[in-house]
Amino acid sequence: MRAVILLSGGLDSCVSATLAKDRCKDLFALSFVYGQKHKKEMESARKIGRYLKVKEHKFITIDPNLFSTSSLVNKDLSIEERNVDEIGRGIPSTYVPARNTIFLCYALAFAESRDADFIYIGVNALDYSGYPDCRPEYIKAFQKVADLGTKRGVEGRRIRIETPLIHMGKKEIVELGVKIKAPLHLTWSCYRGGKKACGRCDSCLLRLKGFWEAGYRDPLDYEHYPDWYDLEKLKPLDF
Amino acid sequence: MRAVILLSGGLDSCVSATLAKDRCKDLFALSFVYGQKHKKEMESARKIGRYLKVKEHKFITIDPNLFSTSSLVNKDLSIEERNVDEIGRGIPSTYVPARNTIFLCYALAFAESRDADFIYIGVNALDYSGYPDCRPEYIKAFQKVADLGTKRGVEGRRIRIETPLIHMGKKEIVELGVKIKAPLHLTWSCYRGGKKACGRCDSCLLRLKGFWEAGYRDPLDYEHYPDWYDLEKLKPLDF
Repeated sequence: MRAVILLSGGLDSCVSATLAKDRCKDLFALSFVYGQKHKKEMESARKIGRYLKVKEHKFITIDPNLFSTSSLVNKDLSIEERNVDEIGRGIPSTYVPARNTIFLCYALAFAESRDADFIYIGVNALDYSGYPDCRPEYIKAFQKVADLGTKRGVEGRRIRIETPLIHMGKKEIVELGVKIKAPLHLTWSCYRGGKKACGRCDSCLLRLKGFWEAGYRDPLDYEHYPDWYDLEKLKPLDF
Repeated sequence: MRAVILLSGGLDSCVSATLAKDRCKDLFALSFVYGQKHKKEMESARKIGRYLKVKEHKFITIDPNLFSTSSLVNKDLSIEERNVDEIGRGIPSTYVPARNTIFLCYALAFAESRDADFIYIGVNALDYSGYPDCRPEYIKAFQKVADLGTKRGVEGRRIRIETPLIHMGKKEIVELGVKIKAPLHLTWSCYRGGKKACGRCDSCLLRLKGFWEAGYRDPLDYEHYPDWYDLEKLKPLDF
């Protein structure tokens, strides 16, 4: 079997792709460059792709001007800092218009042209950052587009959108990643692109909370740790 | 009001965009370059955009390798010729994997970032070329993706996918185009990119049939006319 995997370079897509690797012989990876403020994510995506021995890895460049309302890509907007318990309330400024829809569309075209049976995407609806296009009902709607809008779908050989993490929190994702030996040390989640992860943005906070609750030490280095994260109490991971 | 218009350079998108112009003050045009065998379509799209005085016209380049199974973009495959009554039976080799899905996704991101209320796409399900992603149920499924997957949708200000031609045949589209004074003389439909339209491919045949049935002379020049198309019996159009 064959799968297209969406690789952002982050924790979730790394675990999701490792699951695809366990199920499918051939992987086809897709990563997107859309004017992110740093290149760390793409370096991580490339490393994860190599680690999983993908047959083909495409990097798609998308005109960032299309997304110019998002603070993730517009350098004139700053990324807000929130407490970890505020995350998920309301749609944050880092929201990128129709991002997952574009990712899934490309994955669909790629899957159909490579005759792949699955698309693996690491979205999750718990501990998510408030983006509308991470919800199960959204994925269900997209599956229908895939079924109705492709030759494979019409011929009854649907391309399945697989969202193995959708009902998991970050804690479960970390636990699963450790269990299936996903290359977590190669991932990057921080919205900023420093030498070390910042430890302050939404993405760092959610990730650290996941590692903390799972009882493992995050293999990445951080500039700052929130006061509830106590390195000494956590099991280190080997890679 | 504002609309994103998808401009392929063909007859249908020209008529659809002219309808958008009648309704909306500001138009934002999107056209796609995905390794088509010729540039005529894009030249036409640009001319139509200028004619309609769009505020912004984006040309999006999509890696043609993604679509490498389609005869429209793969130079090793030939475009089949069929009789006009065979068109619509089965999915032809010109099918491009998930094409409309990719177009609509970009339109969705563009619409959200420009705060547009509508997306105008010139798909039609009658006299269509057998593509699954031109059917009303497909568009309905995509509307749901738009409602669930965008900030505007979640906030109750949905971006509406407008498909004014979806239930029309080519005859009605030509009649409507003439009525609303759409710049039909600027369009290009032929799959091949000669100086004149070929008059033999699916797209030429459907178009000529539409003009023939509507009783108007197609303003384009053709290399070849099918024997049922009698120039002398048709009203000429003025532009």
